[in-house]
Amino acid sequence: MRDTPARIALLTDFGDQDTYVGVMKGVISGIAPLAETVDITHQVSPGDIRRAAFQLWQSVPFFPPGTIFLVVVDPGVGTGRKPVAARWQDQTVVAPDNGLLTYLLASDAPEQAVYLDNSEFHLESVSATFHGRDVFAPAAAHLARGIEPDQLGSPAGALVRFDLPALEWAGDGILSGEILHLDRFGNAITTIGRLRRRGDVTAFQPWLPTAESGELGSELVLTLESGLSLPLRVTFAAGGVGQPLAYLGSESLVEIAVNRGHAGDSLNLSSGQRVKLSSKD
Amino acid sequence: MRDTPARIALLTDFGDQDTYVGVMKGVISGIAPLAETVDITHQVSPGDIRRAAFQLWQSVPFFPPGTIFLVVVDPGVGTGRKPVAARWQDQTVVAPDNGLLTYLLASDAPEQAVYLDNSEFHLESVSATFHGRDVFAPAAAHLARGIEPDQLGSPAGALVRFDLPALEWAGDGILSGEILHLDRFGNAITTIGRLRRRGDVTAFQPWLPTAESGELGSELVLTLESGLSLPLRVTFAAGGVGQPLAYLGSESLVEIAVNRGHAGDSLNLSSGQRVKLSSKD
Amino acid sequence: MRDTPARIALLTDFGDQDTYVGVMKGVISGIAPLAETVDITHQVSPGDIRRAAFQLWQSVPFFPPGTIFLVVVDPGVGTGRKPVAARWQDQTVVAPDNGLLTYLLASDAPEQAVYLDNSEFHLESVSATFHGRDVFAPAAAHLARGIEPDQLGSPAGALVRFDLPALEWAGDGILSGEILHLDRFGNAITTIGRLRRRGDVTAFQPWLPTAESGELGSELVLTLESGLSLPLRVTFAAGGVGQPLAYLGSESLVEIAVNRGHAGDSLNLSSGQRVKLSSKD
Repeated sequence: MRDTPARIALLTDFGDQDTYVGVMKGVISGIAPLAETVDITHQVSPGDIRRAAFQLWQSVPFFPPGTIFLVVVDPGVGTGRKPVAARWQDQTVVAPDNGLLTYLLASDAPEQAVYLDNSEFHLESVSATFHGRDVFAPAAAHLARGIEPDQLGSPAGALVRFDLPALEWAGDGILSGEILHLDRFGNAITTIGRLRRRGDVTAFQPWLPTAESGELGSELVLTLESGLSLPLRVTFAAGGVGQPLAYLGSESLVEIAVNRGHAGDSLNLSSGQRVKLSSKD
Repeated sequence: MRDTPARIALLTDFGDQDTYVGVMKGVISGIAPLAETVDITHQVSPGDIRRAAFQLWQSVPFFPPGTIFLVVVDPGVGTGRKPVAARWQDQTVVAPDNGLLTYLLASDAPEQAVYLDNSEFHLESVSATFHGRDVFAPAAAHLARGIEPDQLGSPAGALVRFDLPALEWAGDGILSGEILHLDRFGNAITTIGRLRRRGDVTAFQPWLPTAESGELGSELVLTLESGLSLPLRVTFAAGGVGQPLAYLGSESLVEIAVNRGHAGDSLNLSSGQRVKLSSKD
Repeated sequence: MRDTPARIALLTDFGDQDTYVGVMKGVISGIAPLAETVDITHQVSPGDIRRAAFQLWQSVPFFPPGTIFLVVVDPGVGTGRKPVAARWQDQTVVAPDNGLLTYLLASDAPEQAVYLDNSEFHLESVSATFHGRDVFAPAAAHLARGIEPDQLGSPAGALVRFDLPALEWAGDGILSGEILHLDRFGNAITTIGRLRRRGDVTAFQPWLPTAESGELGSELVLTLESGLSLPLRVTFAAGGVGQPLAYLGSESLVEIAVNRGHAGDSLNLSSGQRVKLSSKD
């Protein structure tokens, strides 16, 4: 039904030691033999919906129009939470309705959202514990074949959203946020950042533009919970080797790094710690 | 020779830190440029043939007909163990003949099985230590191109099988089994389960149906080595958060879980521990 | 522009917990929808250019002509190090110019090498910290579409090379080398080996042929830093279970293993330890 092969991008907490991801791909290839699958990550900590929601939001703008995102972090499988497919102009996400779409929804309402309640598009026998295989992968594969979302089930109501992580003006031109997570290199990604807009799907409005707002001066420092203040730099290599610094990372969010080191370990950083951005005084 | 691209599903103990898997895929793409590869897992513990055999059996029913399974867990590489290709009606497995086919063989004899002794289909120079690259990957790739198994070598004799893990009637309607392994979520998968049949390749007959046999009542409990007894539930979310329970998992095998927790850690579970399923009294 | 889909092989230190690899693949698929990506490994230790350079050299000969290698281990991103594309007869490598090409350059000069300084082939907005996404992945994707290297930028000067690891004649027919790294199985790969030549790209001349040179006798022993001497065998399964031995591994380099064990742990091996190959006396 499509000329070019559809692409399904997978994001789960299934890890890589079990057969869960491979089995989902097997199911997809049985339904949509020409669809291509791409792994975003399967190493979300078990049940960490917030991290997965952020990673989905990070990834969406870099995939071409038509990509189907299959996101399965589903600690409530077998309970009342509903499987959903939501379509924006360019992309479609298939996921449990448990908050995984929070960041995307913060930018724009989807054009279409359905619950995956048409069992014609499930595997023949649906287990109580592995909807990734039995419900979500088949839905993504049918979408890849050109099936429209409204064939997969009935219109969805308001989708589940969690509260966005902290980012607020703390008076006197101070922007107060928190550390979202550490990446593999030990860099800490914070909630403080600039608006990034690459197509309507992806803007995450709570990330306020600082430079454009003009409310903060051009010489900025990031203050950590420990009291340490770091100048805001253009690149993490700007400081000497072993020096800690803050910079605007590739997500357009302020990150904390140690040049050629591991900031998380050196500076004792962890998710949820508060950070403040202010003018150098 | 085929209209749709053939699919090769890989299952190995090569991990992800070395180049072994990538190099096998390079070899495949040189021989069969249109074949697609799919990873089941490469995180089998080094040399753990039993786990890999189980994971192969778990995965096969969810891949479409025509899939070629390339399974390399090969602690005996360079010794007398023989490389083999075995074809059932819908699927073909390429592997060392060291027990990896045990579960599949327990269901049905293959239609065809050959030793990979035709060196025309090996890499030009075969190392003594990496037959995944030099023998198995080329065989899978040639099969993907449409080469028939009997061109790859001479007819195989009886294939190697290990003893299936424990599952037996222990009298008084008690079914006695063991823990097979823990998955990423800390759920323990046991040998106790229902017959699953999705095409002839996949039935594993020693997994006796309990519900259909009628020999066990509808109220069942699973008793662990520690003496703890858990009611058998439909889904792992059926208990309250933090509660341990047993349920029929997505493999149609009884699993032990802690709702939103890690059963392996909480209940001190490990492979080989005995479990018993019996009527609630 | 090509009849068969181009293949891009990825080798990075991005790990698998973040979205970095997935995002690079998203960018590639947006530019070259028909290109296929293959993972070599993403588990290079952060910033370990030497290991990645070796793994690239190991992998290249097993991929078909036309493969594009996208190698991103880039601790100097945002500094003066230059992004480069280098083309040999059959393969093209896209990487930061920081030593990653050292082993390949030791065999043959590339036919063509350019700096990726034509911003027309970068993402619209280039971050200071993620050139994998913004510069290298787009370059590889454009090459996959058939763009010639010289369109990507200006001719490169001499490319960066590090000193090759130790391998030297230590007099009296003794070949002195070192342990390069341990693989997943605990096998230690040393610098001592035979010339491997599979097309001009791949020969790594410092690896001198021992058998062909005739300077060492046919009964050889490898002596470790601990003083332990191991006979050189054909395969690691040649010794009894639990026995340590040396053998010529699949890379045509001498390796140290324990049959069905973990040599690194048992023999206390690590990268950089000296080893000596000599005639048995």
